[in-house]
Amino acid sequence: MPEAVLCEPKSVEQFAAIVAELTQSTDQPRLFTRVRSDQLASLPAGLLERLDIDPVSRTAILHGVRPPRPGRVTVVAAGTSDAAVAAEAERTLEFSGVRVESIVDVGVAGLWRLEERLDEIRAADIVIAVAGMDAALVSVLGGLVAAPLVAVPTSVGYGVATGGSTALHSALASCAQGVTVVNIDNGFGAACAAVRMLSLLGGAAE
Amino acid sequence: MPEAVLCEPKSVEQFAAIVAELTQSTDQPRLFTRVRSDQLASLPAGLLERLDIDPVSRTAILHGVRPPRPGRVTVVAAGTSDAAVAAEAERTLEFSGVRVESIVDVGVAGLWRLEERLDEIRAADIVIAVAGMDAALVSVLGGLVAAPLVAVPTSVGYGVATGGSTALHSALASCAQGVTVVNIDNGFGAACAAVRMLSLLGGAAE
Amino acid sequence: MPEAVLCEPKSVEQFAAIVAELTQSTDQPRLFTRVRSDQLASLPAGLLERLDIDPVSRTAILHGVRPPRPGRVTVVAAGTSDAAVAAEAERTLEFSGVRVESIVDVGVAGLWRLEERLDEIRAADIVIAVAGMDAALVSVLGGLVAAPLVAVPTSVGYGVATGGSTALHSALASCAQGVTVVNIDNGFGAACAAVRMLSLLGGAAE
Amino acid sequence: MPEAVLCEPKSVEQFAAIVAELTQSTDQPRLFTRVRSDQLASLPAGLLERLDIDPVSRTAILHGVRPPRPGRVTVVAAGTSDAAVAAEAERTLEFSGVRVESIVDVGVAGLWRLEERLDEIRAADIVIAVAGMDAALVSVLGGLVAAPLVAVPTSVGYGVATGGSTALHSALASCAQGVTVVNIDNGFGAACAAVRMLSLLGGAAE
Amino acid sequence: MPEAVLCEPKSVEQFAAIVAELTQSTDQPRLFTRVRSDQLASLPAGLLERLDIDPVSRTAILHGVRPPRPGRVTVVAAGTSDAAVAAEAERTLEFSGVRVESIVDVGVAGLWRLEERLDEIRAADIVIAVAGMDAALVSVLGGLVAAPLVAVPTSVGYGVATGGSTALHSALASCAQGVTVVNIDNGFGAACAAVRMLSLLGGAAE
Amino acid sequence: MPEAVLCEPKSVEQFAAIVAELTQSTDQPRLFTRVRSDQLASLPAGLLERLDIDPVSRTAILHGVRPPRPGRVTVVAAGTSDAAVAAEAERTLEFSGVRVESIVDVGVAGLWRLEERLDEIRAADIVIAVAGMDAALVSVLGGLVAAPLVAVPTSVGYGVATGGSTALHSALASCAQGVTVVNIDNGFGAACAAVRMLSLLGGAAE
Amino acid sequence: MPEAVLCEPKSVEQFAAIVAELTQSTDQPRLFTRVRSDQLASLPAGLLERLDIDPVSRTAILHGVRPPRPGRVTVVAAGTSDAAVAAEAERTLEFSGVRVESIVDVGVAGLWRLEERLDEIRAADIVIAVAGMDAALVSVLGGLVAAPLVAVPTSVGYGVATGGSTALHSALASCAQGVTVVNIDNGFGAACAAVRMLSLLGGAAE
Amino acid sequence: MPEAVLCEPKSVEQFAAIVAELTQSTDQPRLFTRVRSDQLASLPAGLLERLDIDPVSRTAILHGVRPPRPGRVTVVAAGTSDAAVAAEAERTLEFSGVRVESIVDVGVAGLWRLEERLDEIRAADIVIAVAGMDAALVSVLGGLVAAPLVAVPTSVGYGVATGGSTALHSALASCAQGVTVVNIDNGFGAACAAVRMLSLLGGAAE
Repeated sequence: MPEAVLCEPKSVEQFAAIVAELTQSTDQPRLFTRVRSDQLASLPAGLLERLDIDPVSRTAILHGVRPPRPGRVTVVAAGTSDAAVAAEAERTLEFSGVRVESIVDVGVAGLWRLEERLDEIRAADIVIAVAGMDAALVSVLGGLVAAPLVAVPTSVGYGVATGGSTALHSALASCAQGVTVVNIDNGFGAACAAVRMLSLLGGAAE
Repeated sequence: MPEAVLCEPKSVEQFAAIVAELTQSTDQPRLFTRVRSDQLASLPAGLLERLDIDPVSRTAILHGVRPPRPGRVTVVAAGTSDAAVAAEAERTLEFSGVRVESIVDVGVAGLWRLEERLDEIRAADIVIAVAGMDAALVSVLGGLVAAPLVAVPTSVGYGVATGGSTALHSALASCAQGVTVVNIDNGFGAACAAVRMLSLLGGAAE
Repeated sequence: MPEAVLCEPKSVEQFAAIVAELTQSTDQPRLFTRVRSDQLASLPAGLLERLDIDPVSRTAILHGVRPPRPGRVTVVAAGTSDAAVAAEAERTLEFSGVRVESIVDVGVAGLWRLEERLDEIRAADIVIAVAGMDAALVSVLGGLVAAPLVAVPTSVGYGVATGGSTALHSALASCAQGVTVVNIDNGFGAACAAVRMLSLLGGAAE
Repeated sequence: MPEAVLCEPKSVEQFAAIVAELTQSTDQPRLFTRVRSDQLASLPAGLLERLDIDPVSRTAILHGVRPPRPGRVTVVAAGTSDAAVAAEAERTLEFSGVRVESIVDVGVAGLWRLEERLDEIRAADIVIAVAGMDAALVSVLGGLVAAPLVAVPTSVGYGVATGGSTALHSALASCAQGVTVVNIDNGFGAACAAVRMLSLLGGAAE
Repeated sequence: MPEAVLCEPKSVEQFAAIVAELTQSTDQPRLFTRVRSDQLASLPAGLLERLDIDPVSRTAILHGVRPPRPGRVTVVAAGTSDAAVAAEAERTLEFSGVRVESIVDVGVAGLWRLEERLDEIRAADIVIAVAGMDAALVSVLGGLVAAPLVAVPTSVGYGVATGGSTALHSALASCAQGVTVVNIDNGFGAACAAVRMLSLLGGAAE
Repeated sequence: MPEAVLCEPKSVEQFAAIVAELTQSTDQPRLFTRVRSDQLASLPAGLLERLDIDPVSRTAILHGVRPPRPGRVTVVAAGTSDAAVAAEAERTLEFSGVRVESIVDVGVAGLWRLEERLDEIRAADIVIAVAGMDAALVSVLGGLVAAPLVAVPTSVGYGVATGGSTALHSALASCAQGVTVVNIDNGFGAACAAVRMLSLLGGAAE
Repeated sequence: MPEAVLCEPKSVEQFAAIVAELTQSTDQPRLFTRVRSDQLASLPAGLLERLDIDPVSRTAILHGVRPPRPGRVTVVAAGTSDAAVAAEAERTLEFSGVRVESIVDVGVAGLWRLEERLDEIRAADIVIAVAGMDAALVSVLGGLVAAPLVAVPTSVGYGVATGGSTALHSALASCAQGVTVVNIDNGFGAACAAVRMLSLLGGAAE
Repeated sequence: MPEAVLCEPKSVEQFAAIVAELTQSTDQPRLFTRVRSDQLASLPAGLLERLDIDPVSRTAILHGVRPPRPGRVTVVAAGTSDAAVAAEAERTLEFSGVRVESIVDVGVAGLWRLEERLDEIRAADIVIAVAGMDAALVSVLGGLVAAPLVAVPTSVGYGVATGGSTALHSALASCAQGVTVVNIDNGFGAACAAVRMLSLLGGAAE
């Protein structure tokens, strides 16, 4: 599993101390997720330059990525507003040495856009569906692909969609069979789940 | 608007008194919704035989239906489990003199089933979408038809779907534009909304 | 349906890219909703001057409005605090070529103010009711007008009214028949629903 | 304040013991509320005949009612479905020696019915408004009468109205000034509040 | 009832327009509640000096207060943190010409402090109890005083107390009889309710 | 800690199997909690007679109770409706060899009843407070006793009190310092917590 | 994916019609889940004898199971109370031709019981964790096994655990990386997810 | 019990007044909790220098700590993100004269880290477990230690963990026996509970 640090709830001081410690104590790849801009702003330049920072996904990588491993994951996002969460999933997979493609803006209100990309999606070993609002994309995709499908509900939206619980509940209640779900906005977790599953490509346990 | 009586919260005595009173005081059509079986069971035979009872929709009609009026409504239901709510909408429309068709078991996890019926659905002046669980049918239909679309979330399901709030929130957060929603399981209300809209077929107000 | 872009959840960069792209790739009218002030502030002047911006409704229009179409909608708002949401509905209707009037500050605690405006309201083909707090306006209007009535609950208020769920639930549980509801603060969605309904003015589908 | 026993959560044995004890130990009036039918069914005949039982309000009275006191309360209920809760308020007031009238089925979707009874309502010292669903009656009444107004939300209804929280929140968020609220279905509590207020008829405290 | 304007949800422009209009069109007293500091900051000096502003209660008064009227209200607050809400109730009563006293910091965890002030509290015609967290003060006071008691739950606190719903539910479920409740933080509404009740001091309606 | 079996969620078959197994495999005391009457009814007579059953607390004991241990616990309940939960705590303590007293019907709306019993309560090493509705008893007791105080919210009540979450949140938000809380209706858990604490009577760990 | 029918929300008549239809129209294996006992009781004997019924998991199988497929799944359940949900997962896997083992009663409060079975659990290709209450088993297992881990929260429990939302939220917020979750009590869905994942044993898609 | 002031909900003026008053009127130790930085920033230098301020726990101490008392408490925190809440518990114990140790970053997803520290934890008289997200640490610790265990759920996290209710419910539904719980983020309250319990070290009450 990817060695990662969830940064958001940490103080500026805690974040700086962890980066400093990991820079010195190890040369193994490390992933930082949900990095706040004030955490980066207060980091000494000597530490900041060690990090490979991606502002869209709010991630940073220290000591490079892990070696390539077999398998291919496609991240499908309903709208451009879901891009940050989708990017977190992609970065985590890249960090983990997994090949990943991304297909954005294929919400089900414009069903033809999704259908145009269906061959690409079906070529993946695992599909991650990122969707907010009513998360209808999850059920539609679940009926169209046979591969493992991990849904990431997002907190995009207003009114009843605020905070993402509508998307979460909708994904959990999906009428498509065998869809699994991670926490709201947890692109990192979906990628970790995919990494667990990709280990099956090596064949059965016994 | 249809003259109707919501029966569920009324006592057996209140129900019997209302039926008796309306049987004598008027010869205008009256619709009874959410009739409980114990309410019917305790009704005197003389009153019971006056009612046209439909057990699936839990409705009863007194003094016949209203005269035919222009327009055509299609009720689309995601699964057979939603049939009771869909039937309430149909009965209310029939009572109101409106032509109505019904298409059941076209959930989006089997998208091809919905697409096979699309021409029929598009032939309607108004579409009522009845769906529980994640109510993904609402967004998919909303993207496929241009007619007014009224969503009825249903309380079918378990876990996060219990009680229907997931379907309700999903319909309200639909990524399809211009979908409107009524209360959970309120097939009657969706039909009433359609009756309001059908009055537009007569032309603009001024 | 109006071609529109929901701007709020998009980053400043995403917003600018979309405006730039649409300015060049099309000359068809486009509506931007829930535009954030920081999104406008960071837009290059050359793009900013192309937009017709309305700060009250937080909307912007590119390439002008759509051609006029038959029908007339009245937007009724309970209080001046609901004005922003009402304005979003109005702007969307104007953008869509629909004639629209607005009646504000007719909450039911001062019933006579509403009754004074009743003739105006009844002259509309469709009524949109915008109301927060207890949204009692919805039920009162629903009993007074026979036209299609779309309720937009608003997030105005504090305590139990915070976020608008009280207004939403109140509108969904309205004791008036055939009222339909859209998401909290979704003036845009109510206008889109009205556009769907106005297509009925052309006569029945078959 | 009325001396009362809330019976619903008590076991059949606890209920019988309390009735037996109060029958012997005192001759002061006692009110039993939310009496369950199985509690009454298991009561020895000798005790049962001592109680003045009202099935609609689910109340029982022991040792008669309290002496008459000045003041007059009107209980207004939105629908016949709210009758049980309204009856609990009425019985508690009668038990307390207060003159009480009742006006039922004046929901705001039929505003004229309420307006026809307005003179009667305005003649009361205190008004209790009993309403479920969206409880819109509360705000409308609050704007029409200047007397103290106590709202009792009811648990009547389905979907979002289930359990009465929509009516409760709607009453608390009422746009009418100075409305106060008691717990869902708490007709007894509203009557007790009225009894507290009626003590003001005797003049200021100092 | 006090003529009042709820300012919080209004834009800076709306607020200034209302103050300007009321300054010119009337000389009757007006109360502004939940005034935001940015609303005051943007007001022209000529208008600002017309207002009698109280920062603790976030209220402003225009054209002075209303004439004195009989009766006396005591506002009891559990902690100093509830002072802002208690002050809103006091200011509204002063504006309405009602004599009002205030007793602060008598939470039930230090029961003796409450008992020391009991004679003062019992001397009031009406008691307003302002309490956050568990709002236990409401039930204790309800058992100790026979006068009308209006509870105002406050949004003070953290964790389960956040937003005030714990205090609200606690007050509604009070084991003391005849307590009534207003919306969270609604000191204004409690004062208005007291004004309604004080009209009873003039004697019964008929 | 007491060796106990939570019976409610188990099937009749699972319950019988566990009783049979424990009867034979051990002679150590075992406690069964939340025993359903249908579970007891379907038990073979040979097993039933081995159990010491208490219907009020819905508990059963097999192989007798544990040896006496030092310390004394008082269980204080707000109302007779809370008796079942209080009894579960008492039975668990008796099973654990702990001396326990019980004080019932001392709700804070009748504060003098509580104050009459205060000396008894203060004589305990640990106090368990069982209260539903607004659970105001918890804060009042918390201010009056210095001993460890464990609150057990109960699900007694209706409206906002339904299910016990109001009592739970009220206890967690208690304005008294150092009160701890267990799950709703969890008299067993409170007793187990007391058993943990009583081990401190033996002196400090090191 | 397994061809299955969710029976719970269907009427007795709908259930019988579906069984009759599938018995005649196909000889392909079919799985019925959440079968109600009244549905079975009303089935004609001729149809009943065609079904392979398992009362613990509330499933029935028609036309036998599907052919064996590679891979091995272990279902781990925290307590015997979770056995019904675990059994639904097992039956669905057996129906799908998947080898499945089951380990019950290894809740984390007795950590050593879980650790004793760890080698067995680690021998599986996929682990399904079934847990109610606080679902702490999910995080502990997630840290101990590297295989894909699907969590099924259950509705076992009372108080805050009622309905299973605590277990659901706990599983979604698991501090172990890469755990995925299905709806409450959805043993069927977890098994379907495992079937999707097992297809990876055949090697990467391209 | 520690004499403490909860500062967060107080205005800057209220805070300054309380500090000034306590500085002069007493020389007894006082603890300030949840101090906001703007409260400290606006304090006169003469008062500021009197306070012993700890930014991590957001506490301040006036007039020193209380004399040492027997007993030893260990505060165990699942992650570094929980450090602020753990620190509040530690500071309150230090203020109260109690010996306290702290063990951080022993979440159950890395079970071995917890097991390495188990001897230290078991040496304490009382254990305070601070945990957010799924709070699985609580159940695991509850099974491993026999001492009194007080759980403090924290508001760390996002999605379903936002605000801490998942951690709170998880702790209340813990499958470990006899765990007690305080409000979310209430490190102060857990310490106070420990102080209550430590009084038992002196021996039984009678």
